[in-house]
Amino acid sequence: MADRMSLIVFSGTVDKLLAASILATGGAAMGMEVEVFLTTWGLEAFRKDAYKTNMRVSKDFEDYAPAMMEAMQTKHAPSWMENFLSAREVGEVKVYACSMTMELFVSNSKTWNPSWMT
Amino acid sequence: MADRMSLIVFSGTVDKLLAASILATGGAAMGMEVEVFLTTWGLEAFRKDAYKTNMRVSKDFEDYAPAMMEAMQTKHAPSWMENFLSAREVGEVKVYACSMTMELFVSNSKTWNPSWMT
Amino acid sequence: MADRMSLIVFSGTVDKLLAASILATGGAAMGMEVEVFLTTWGLEAFRKDAYKTNMRVSKDFEDYAPAMMEAMQTKHAPSWMENFLSAREVGEVKVYACSMTMELFVSNSKTWNPSWMT
Repeated sequence: MADRMSLIVFSGTVDKLLAASILATGGAAMGMEVEVFLTTWGLEAFRKDAYKTNMRVSKDFEDYAPAMMEAMQTKHAPSWMENFLSAREVGEVKVYACSMTMELFVSNSKTWNPSWMT
Repeated sequence: MADRMSLIVFSGTVDKLLAASILATGGAAMGMEVEVFLTTWGLEAFRKDAYKTNMRVSKDFEDYAPAMMEAMQTKHAPSWMENFLSAREVGEVKVYACSMTMELFVSNSKTWNPSWMT
Repeated sequence: MADRMSLIVFSGTVDKLLAASILATGGAAMGMEVEVFLTTWGLEAFRKDAYKTNMRVSKDFEDYAPAMMEAMQTKHAPSWMENFLSAREVGEVKVYACSMTMELFVSNSKTWNPSWMT
């Protein structure tokens, strides 16, 4: 049985989504079965096209946000969404949506992007 | 031996307390031995009656706070405190207070609500 | 084989660094092999001398920051940096720096303090 990685993504700030997406990519590349559970603000971040305009960075470090965004552009670092898509290409990655969050904020499989949630 | 769930509750925002309380409820309902360790802002949230007025939502997503509070009221969603109380009714849930936080912020078993900490 | 403790330090606020440092100290004192992985804002907090001026407290609870800082001074509580140094004195503690963060924010072993990273 393959090793497994389970991630709970609660936050929807770019810095935390980036960290989660790098873990998912690494796990998938190592042949692990990766499960990603999206809840609360983490699920909101997956709303269709939301990732294109999401510039949220943790308020605790928002003074670093411009430097972070600029460094990522200059170094052509892949975005968190690109990382998650790569992870799904190279390995077995399942993404789950929290049903309670869906009910609370009125979302469903059609409101997500990309539409690859389980 | 029953499966165990250990939760460390560090934050005291309503969104995170809600997530922790749902995990505790689910664990208790599945017959797990649930242990909850309250520290720093998570312990402050359990001060007597504090839960009645605590409207803190993660600053990273505070623009969502009114929508979240309204949705919870409209849908009669149980509060995080109600969830924790339910968890204790249906299963074995132990709640521990961090002694270092108690010392730092001067609290004791009489300052908590409810008074069911170990 | 000794028990192991793995910590991922993502945040660089004093409250969270304090919690991580207490876990590291406790693990080291119990004879565990402690591994600390510093990433994103957690690595920034280890920049040389940064700990001397870092007064960041989680924005969600920044109204508590003055009380927290004052209580720590009054009670002579050790800082998070002192805790990490103590942990390394009493046990086996390895600290790793995230290479992606290093690349993004341009840091290296000479920019850290103390210079005991692996």
